[in-house]
Amino acid sequence: MTKILVCYHSRSGTTERMAEEIVKGIQERDVEVDLYKVEEVNLNFLPDYDALILGSPTYYGGPSAEMKSFIDKSIKFHGKLEWKVGGAFASSANPAGGNETTVMGLIESMLIHGMIVKGMPKGDHYGPVVIGEADERELKQCRFYGNWMAELTEGVSGWISKK
Amino acid sequence: MTKILVCYHSRSGTTERMAEEIVKGIQERDVEVDLYKVEEVNLNFLPDYDALILGSPTYYGGPSAEMKSFIDKSIKFHGKLEWKVGGAFASSANPAGGNETTVMGLIESMLIHGMIVKGMPKGDHYGPVVIGEADERELKQCRFYGNWMAELTEGVSGWISKK
Amino acid sequence: MTKILVCYHSRSGTTERMAEEIVKGIQERDVEVDLYKVEEVNLNFLPDYDALILGSPTYYGGPSAEMKSFIDKSIKFHGKLEWKVGGAFASSANPAGGNETTVMGLIESMLIHGMIVKGMPKGDHYGPVVIGEADERELKQCRFYGNWMAELTEGVSGWISKK
Amino acid sequence: MTKILVCYHSRSGTTERMAEEIVKGIQERDVEVDLYKVEEVNLNFLPDYDALILGSPTYYGGPSAEMKSFIDKSIKFHGKLEWKVGGAFASSANPAGGNETTVMGLIESMLIHGMIVKGMPKGDHYGPVVIGEADERELKQCRFYGNWMAELTEGVSGWISKK
Repeated sequence: MTKILVCYHSRSGTTERMAEEIVKGIQERDVEVDLYKVEEVNLNFLPDYDALILGSPTYYGGPSAEMKSFIDKSIKFHGKLEWKVGGAFASSANPAGGNETTVMGLIESMLIHGMIVKGMPKGDHYGPVVIGEADERELKQCRFYGNWMAELTEGVSGWISKK
Repeated sequence: MTKILVCYHSRSGTTERMAEEIVKGIQERDVEVDLYKVEEVNLNFLPDYDALILGSPTYYGGPSAEMKSFIDKSIKFHGKLEWKVGGAFASSANPAGGNETTVMGLIESMLIHGMIVKGMPKGDHYGPVVIGEADERELKQCRFYGNWMAELTEGVSGWISKK
Repeated sequence: MTKILVCYHSRSGTTERMAEEIVKGIQERDVEVDLYKVEEVNLNFLPDYDALILGSPTYYGGPSAEMKSFIDKSIKFHGKLEWKVGGAFASSANPAGGNETTVMGLIESMLIHGMIVKGMPKGDHYGPVVIGEADERELKQCRFYGNWMAELTEGVSGWISKK
Repeated sequence: MTKILVCYHSRSGTTERMAEEIVKGIQERDVEVDLYKVEEVNLNFLPDYDALILGSPTYYGGPSAEMKSFIDKSIKFHGKLEWKVGGAFASSANPAGGNETTVMGLIESMLIHGMIVKGMPKGDHYGPVVIGEADERELKQCRFYGNWMAELTEGVSGWISKK
């Protein structure tokens, strides 16, 4: 069965709230999902997932050191995560406050793992973003993103398994 | 006298509106400023300015082809724009719709010219951004940005002239 | 049958050489491929392809205005290119001379179209890059990239057609 | 007297070697310089410096978690580092292996602090980069970069002190 890991770092609770909504979107499909704080996730299970969705607050235009530490340690599985699906989301205090560069920083890390990413033609193009407190439009977008990442992962993993 | 060029591309009028507010902010200081549409600017006067502030709508996450064409042609003065001040601004339809990557794309071009850029510790960190129709907070930030770019340019050009 | 468009802009011939090698890599698989200069491609056929691979020289840290103009005009098909595969390559005069930001600029445009992109765990992670004159290692990487993009496109388009 | 901090993270020794050459370049001018490993630097002295030059290996397309942790903690002085000069350098295993995105990630953090950065019209445009083992061209560029950052810092700090 297709299995997705949503892993996030959150201090204020906003990124956590986003992660929970993304999980709801994933659960609208027939896909298994695990939700972990980055401080509590067991890196050793990474290769068991078909997709990895990472979320971080925007700290100085990039992912937090806590999230970056998780990414740096994933070198243990370099080459093993190729062909898996990747996605990213971020919260920030201000519009144009570094949220796009944070999402793109996470996506760049995933591309270096050889992962498959996809943007959105509507809304937050690179991945969902919340500015300040999450509003209903933003949370709805997180759910939509989860559903659509689950669809992508089902499709890709179905094909990869036959490769 | 310190002289700044504000040059923009605008289809809907939003980026033009931003440019006009930035000019107002510059004029609060004792600094000369020229405002040009990118279609009408004379590239040959580029080396006469102490600072260059470029604005573009966000088209697929980067500056418009019209603005990029201006930048590509500036290779004529490669090396001659070093030590000049650079700044950038952008409009976009959505939050997280590519405005930061557009501003950073403009800034990267300026860094390659050897220009001096500066961010803002408050608000839109890389340069002013308007999402959809410009609101008062956004226009105020454009004025503030103009004033502060004028201050930077006065300081840098004062020092460079004695170099 | 799976069909890929390789479209490039080249002044010195380096990006053209890369495009030709990428085509060779694609042809190692049972996939159709069209190769066009950006000045000669017919935008109206874009929706007929399963993948779009764009190549540009590095001009001031981003794609050339000619390539950007093609991307800006593709707004005609906004939403219609979602779920298609995207890839990017670039040439530049210097290492660390803006080639990564050029490739990422192209990838960001594709993400905004909702396209599917993938990085490489070995070599040039975001997409193939040639520094100065193309050497054999770089050309080999272009062929490998073409082959691997063809594999990705076959897999994704096979799944999408059943969606 | 003008005072610069060069702070780096290095595992293999390459980034350290770069840092030492940058220091040599700074010392060709009448400018004080401190060199620290990121694990040993005392964050509390940050506001005492006129410029901050940060170096990191390229880990998954961005600065290492150790360097990012230092940047995240610098929020303690948010607003206090405005108008200071910033610079960045990076090492990486491969060309097009994420070194530009690492340097730009560091620069984006500095822009968010409101710092002043400058690119180079020749060579590694955003900041010095070493691919694999450092060769003489790369080390020479590090020395040149140090000298030129010292010149920029002298100029800017002379002006800022009179502001």
